[in-house]
Amino acid sequence: MRAEKRIGFVPTMGFLHEGHLSLVRMARMMSDLTVVSIFVNPIQFGPKEDYLRYPRDIERDSTLLERGGADILFLPAEREMYPEGYATYVQVRGLEDLLCGKTRKGHFLGVATVVLKLFNIVRPHIAVFGEKDYQQLKVIERMVRDLHLDVEIVPHPIVREPDGLAMSSRNTYLSEEERRRAPSIFRSLEVARALFLDGERRARAIKEKVEAFLKDADVQVEYVSVCHPDTLQELDRIEGSAVVLVACWIGRTRLIDNIFLREDGSPCGE
Amino acid sequence: MRAEKRIGFVPTMGFLHEGHLSLVRMARMMSDLTVVSIFVNPIQFGPKEDYLRYPRDIERDSTLLERGGADILFLPAEREMYPEGYATYVQVRGLEDLLCGKTRKGHFLGVATVVLKLFNIVRPHIAVFGEKDYQQLKVIERMVRDLHLDVEIVPHPIVREPDGLAMSSRNTYLSEEERRRAPSIFRSLEVARALFLDGERRARAIKEKVEAFLKDADVQVEYVSVCHPDTLQELDRIEGSAVVLVACWIGRTRLIDNIFLREDGSPCGE
Repeated sequence: MRAEKRIGFVPTMGFLHEGHLSLVRMARMMSDLTVVSIFVNPIQFGPKEDYLRYPRDIERDSTLLERGGADILFLPAEREMYPEGYATYVQVRGLEDLLCGKTRKGHFLGVATVVLKLFNIVRPHIAVFGEKDYQQLKVIERMVRDLHLDVEIVPHPIVREPDGLAMSSRNTYLSEEERRRAPSIFRSLEVARALFLDGERRARAIKEKVEAFLKDADVQVEYVSVCHPDTLQELDRIEGSAVVLVACWIGRTRLIDNIFLREDGSPCGE
Repeated sequence: MRAEKRIGFVPTMGFLHEGHLSLVRMARMMSDLTVVSIFVNPIQFGPKEDYLRYPRDIERDSTLLERGGADILFLPAEREMYPEGYATYVQVRGLEDLLCGKTRKGHFLGVATVVLKLFNIVRPHIAVFGEKDYQQLKVIERMVRDLHLDVEIVPHPIVREPDGLAMSSRNTYLSEEERRRAPSIFRSLEVARALFLDGERRARAIKEKVEAFLKDADVQVEYVSVCHPDTLQELDRIEGSAVVLVACWIGRTRLIDNIFLREDGSPCGE
């Protein structure tokens, strides 16, 4: 039986930053009881990815959450989430193989699965997700609709450092020199927006400029994509709105970012 | 918000028989409000299977359900369950590829998906499943545990015709001559039980006798399997208990059946 109180939920992998704390504030505003989970979900990492070195600091996180006004911190154990004999996985076809899914095989399967499990345990009325992980947000939204889940997904705009770098726990991997290069990612997306505001509607022209900008900034591009905001299908021409997504490598650190483009020019989605 | 009443649920594909009605009676006994769904789920049929010719008779079904004491009949439309852009599917790995899953590719993916969707719509406290579809029951039980679903799965023993044939909507496909051969399926499982009660514990010996019996009865075997009752892994030797599962063809009709074997000899599972 659901609690009478309206439950707001923020699922995280911990090592919290101001981005997470903004999600917590939004959840607080929209609910009576704010639950934050911290769980570094092994099944969303590939075998060669950074599961083991993913940064963890539960003590610091719980202090931040207490100060940030979260009511409940949920810290499931791995053996509790994936006990012996665990077998159930959620596919969101179409959305999970594109973009980040091309190189991060099984990543969104792991994300959808753990989020569904967390929803079923926490039973939130609303759940807040950051727009930095835009593809993740779309996968979750699709899953919620398809599985008739009784939870409202609330997207939160990307929270950025003063120099534009999107906040991410993985930013801590960057050396000083790499950190100085990292704001080019956001600046490349501002190039896309400037082109769009100038009337450019050809996706390829925008992509090429963004890629060139990143190359010049010594950032290794994994993909730049101009997509339909819901289906994430690559566009030829932008009609109405689009999202420009970037995944790239700075040294050994993989970072993602995105920007929303819409006809009226409002800066939604960042 | 869940209703105060305890909801019992029986998901079906319709064309109801006494087996279904027994599930409804059990749901009634265990709840305050009994919901029965009828939905011939397209995604659990293979491209060469009998989705189109699967028997349907909603008027007869609703009369039977009214008489049988069901409170609510839920008849979702296909476009409601799988609207344009539908993308989400539930895998129960390990359990879904064995036995019937070998020939019916994607069948249990379709079953797990639709059952999760129905659970999320109906929000039952208990749900009753027949043991004839033993692998389906195990897939659902595993999914419920893995996804922390707040529903109790209640298995119901197989309901049989007087001559032993397990009740199935697909029995209506049988010609008169085929119908006369069909009870051999259950009799082959009685052979397995007799051997077991005589002390036979070697799975292969039991399988071979069951297969030979079916062959003699002019029934085409798809598989005979002696399995662990939970993992459905093939056993070499029976320690404690086992389930013997049969899938076979009588003419163009595919039928399944099973029997539970346990040390104390009690006829659980049929």
